[in-house]
Amino acid sequence: METTRLETLADGVFAIAATLLIIDVSVEAHGDELGAALAHAWPQYAAYAISFLTIGIMWVNHQAIFRQIGRADHRFQFLNIGLLLCIAFVPFPTRLVAEHLRDDGLQVAAYAYGLTMTATAICFGSLWFYAAVGRRLIADTADERVVRGISRSYLPGAPIYALSTLVAVWSPEASVGLFAAIAIFFALESSLFGGSRP
Amino acid sequence: METTRLETLADGVFAIAATLLIIDVSVEAHGDELGAALAHAWPQYAAYAISFLTIGIMWVNHQAIFRQIGRADHRFQFLNIGLLLCIAFVPFPTRLVAEHLRDDGLQVAAYAYGLTMTATAICFGSLWFYAAVGRRLIADTADERVVRGISRSYLPGAPIYALSTLVAVWSPEASVGLFAAIAIFFALESSLFGGSRP
Amino acid sequence: METTRLETLADGVFAIAATLLIIDVSVEAHGDELGAALAHAWPQYAAYAISFLTIGIMWVNHQAIFRQIGRADHRFQFLNIGLLLCIAFVPFPTRLVAEHLRDDGLQVAAYAYGLTMTATAICFGSLWFYAAVGRRLIADTADERVVRGISRSYLPGAPIYALSTLVAVWSPEASVGLFAAIAIFFALESSLFGGSRP
Amino acid sequence: METTRLETLADGVFAIAATLLIIDVSVEAHGDELGAALAHAWPQYAAYAISFLTIGIMWVNHQAIFRQIGRADHRFQFLNIGLLLCIAFVPFPTRLVAEHLRDDGLQVAAYAYGLTMTATAICFGSLWFYAAVGRRLIADTADERVVRGISRSYLPGAPIYALSTLVAVWSPEASVGLFAAIAIFFALESSLFGGSRP
Repeated sequence: METTRLETLADGVFAIAATLLIIDVSVEAHGDELGAALAHAWPQYAAYAISFLTIGIMWVNHQAIFRQIGRADHRFQFLNIGLLLCIAFVPFPTRLVAEHLRDDGLQVAAYAYGLTMTATAICFGSLWFYAAVGRRLIADTADERVVRGISRSYLPGAPIYALSTLVAVWSPEASVGLFAAIAIFFALESSLFGGSRP
Repeated sequence: METTRLETLADGVFAIAATLLIIDVSVEAHGDELGAALAHAWPQYAAYAISFLTIGIMWVNHQAIFRQIGRADHRFQFLNIGLLLCIAFVPFPTRLVAEHLRDDGLQVAAYAYGLTMTATAICFGSLWFYAAVGRRLIADTADERVVRGISRSYLPGAPIYALSTLVAVWSPEASVGLFAAIAIFFALESSLFGGSRP
Repeated sequence: METTRLETLADGVFAIAATLLIIDVSVEAHGDELGAALAHAWPQYAAYAISFLTIGIMWVNHQAIFRQIGRADHRFQFLNIGLLLCIAFVPFPTRLVAEHLRDDGLQVAAYAYGLTMTATAICFGSLWFYAAVGRRLIADTADERVVRGISRSYLPGAPIYALSTLVAVWSPEASVGLFAAIAIFFALESSLFGGSRP
Repeated sequence: METTRLETLADGVFAIAATLLIIDVSVEAHGDELGAALAHAWPQYAAYAISFLTIGIMWVNHQAIFRQIGRADHRFQFLNIGLLLCIAFVPFPTRLVAEHLRDDGLQVAAYAYGLTMTATAICFGSLWFYAAVGRRLIADTADERVVRGISRSYLPGAPIYALSTLVAVWSPEASVGLFAAIAIFFALESSLFGGSRP
């Protein structure tokens, strides 16, 4: 079974999930208060940028996985759908964090965001290891060192997000700061050294 | 006539219909009530997950059909558009079920959801049997046993959804439970045994 | 210049414009009034179905055009973008017609819908005739009779929609009925006889 | 690394960002006031058309760039994601300009729109020059004169948008008029002379 339509579907979901984030950015204000209202709404832009970047990183990783994949089976299709289910969910907790960045709801919002990212990392790992173990779905031409490198890089993903979520028990602000730092770190690291991690 | 753009359009509609479901997941609450509000909103997450899974299963089936199809004609194009019309409609009854899961509207919402799924199953069957009867649009390389297997697997789809809808006359809760069970069953069955049904 | 990405962009816009129509279908009601509210909202479903079908017919025509096209140039790209601009606009007048089907606003809503469809038909014609005149962008392998057949079929499109819009001066209901009839006629005719018109 | 999925993702984001613009076009009115309300809402249609055209021009340029690109690397992927982040943001300032075209908020809205377009032009330039300097990612078959032509055409983009934004300090109306004029000029110029600029 070929992977072409799996990738088309995935690209569609990535593009829509990322682009839908802008629907949640909105500012209502009378004319003369627009400047102040736009300045006050900065968490919305930050949330938009961090989430777009996060979904972008996920897309880069999805692509990195599929370059090593030679074929698909039914279980792989459903693991892929489970992953897309998580990714399409990202706009919801993102909105929660942006809305509650400056009130008592931030702790709960940080849990929601962190659990979503942890679940996404677990789905990413499941998709990859299902394909990679015993080179079940790996293309014959794929270099074993690249495959092992991806496997190693997937191990820390879920624990890093789970620990960052736990930090919200003591400080929701620190937890949200960690989520932003992870996104920026992976984007920079990926650009600077060419690695590909969850 | 080739089927490439038919599949691109379909993948787009599947991806958007699935991803749009998250727009309907929303929780408005003051900061200190966010935890309780998020917990109370569980039917929204359940509806999101079940519908995403259902659209995912439909996509797997659409793909399974098109692997056997060798060419398209005008009627097949319109049958495909009719099917997409049903699939893009799914977010609406899904929202109704999630909103009315705990009030008197559940029976009507279950009818709406069930009728949509029954109509979708009928459209899926029409698309397939139009192509399969006399191998009208089947690829020359397609294995006749696979074609017959898909034909057999499409027969129970519409009756199963129609009966589950009927159950709502006596118990809307049981009907909604059946819809969830059907989605989970097909996903598991498809993953475990590799079958492909509506 | 190849037409691959032109078609990908167009398929994306068609898929999104069609699928977005469901966002405008919404029913707010208390539990025990849901049945009556859903029955009362029938213009929304009708508008959804007619518009989805109309966008589907446009997609079939777009595909029929591009099967004859061998290459693109800059002007053709912008004519295509102008056409997509019209098609992505369709959800707005559709919503107007559905909202005002039973009040005094129907006449204005019918004008808005009719003008949008007339403009779309003119854009479709411009795209086609720009490519077809002197076989400017027509593929070398394209059959001249097919090209002439498409040219003939594009002539009545804009006048038919313009006249149906004019009918709203005397009877908005008749005008809206004509719009629905045109969509159903082209879908049936296209399915039954395999023609392809705007 | 091939660029196929980069282009699919980009086409998806372009298609969605453009098509989502219609969600912000809405008119609420009682039946007999619909005509006046629709006439009064003209800035919404103008904003829709200008933004759709602007995103369309960006897509034409994106395509023009990728026709010269032979391969991608990790940094190029992230530059592309950064560009898409800007493009998917366009519907937000567009909505601001349309909402405040006739009140005191226009100055701030013009700054928001202009900054978004300037940032987009900078991202476009970064993407191109990263690929073009030393022909880092340029296809071996690409004509050096075409590559230099694109490089020259990218230099004025960001300054033009930055200056048009500055004009809003004295006259927000003139600034918004310039944004519309730039979009229409590039579309016409591109259609008439076949150039491709930001």
